Amino acid sequence: MKKRAKIMVLVLVGVLVTGVAAAQFAKTEDAIQYRKAVMVLIGHHFKQMGAVVQGKADYDQKVFTANAEVVKTQATLPWNAFLEPGTDKGDTTMSSAVFKKKDDFLKTAEAFQADTALLAEAAQGADLNGLKAPFNAVAQNCKACHKAFRK
Amino acid sequence: MKKRAKIMVLVLVGVLVTGVAAAQFAKTEDAIQYRKAVMVLIGHHFKQMGAVVQGKADYDQKVFTANAEVVKTQATLPWNAFLEPGTDKGDTTMSSAVFKKKDDFLKTAEAFQADTALLAEAAQGADLNGLKAPFNAVAQNCKACHKAFRK
Repeated sequence: MKKRAKIMVLVLVGVLVTGVAAAQFAKTEDAIQYRKAVMVLIGHHFKQMGAVVQGKADYDQKVFTANAEVVKTQATLPWNAFLEPGTDKGDTTMSSAVFKKKDDFLKTAEAFQADTALLAEAAQGADLNGLKAPFNAVAQNCKACHKAFRK
Repeated sequence: MKKRAKIMVLVLVGVLVTGVAAAQFAKTEDAIQYRKAVMVLIGHHFKQMGAVVQGKADYDQKVFTANAEVVKTQATLPWNAFLEPGTDKGDTTMSSAVFKKKDDFLKTAEAFQADTALLAEAAQGADLNGLKAPFNAVAQNCKACHKAFRK
């Protein structure tokens, strides 16, 4: 738990920096398009790892690590795009709960970032069995956030 | 030039690793969606830097560096998605020149990655004036690739 707490602090600093970088959207559609793009990439690379964890694809540490690194990096990017006012309307599945329960939303976003960082770290050293728990932790984050904040 | 050559080698290694990670697409639409997503993110963060370089937005080194880092990272991702057979058809602006001139395409992809890495490095230390040349080098890469390989 200490390690996770430490990562959470790093995540918060990361959010502040990349958050600022990603914060400027000329139109609400731009913010929606931006966060959708991030989710496409997270989804793609997470699925690749899922196939390995579920025994449907061969385990190659280099490939798994690369996928985990991409997910970790993408996980830092989209949060300000979700918080952009008015982006619960239009071509989006985002629920207005993001605005109504902003603190809860940010907590799930931070947990997701912390857990994707832990997965990327685990990928460096572990054999396949050691990756299942950190992979599942990230999968639980996905589900929890989608359940609470997706239409 | 020595530095750029060194970065090109690192880029090639990067392509091999992340390339493998991104190589598996179940459907041609997935590959198209994937590379479009990467381009959305590159476009967004590059535009932010463009506004600063053109004097339309304030220069904040932290923000500029964060944008440059995002572009550098995204620049490693989409190339295998472009090379996926059949993806010059469908909902895409990619020209079939990508397949016909694959070596040229990969060269422009490598140059783009090398120059985005140089921009991210320049962002670490330089004042705004020092960023214009590396920013413009990346912009030239965008243009050259779009001209040759976009419908």
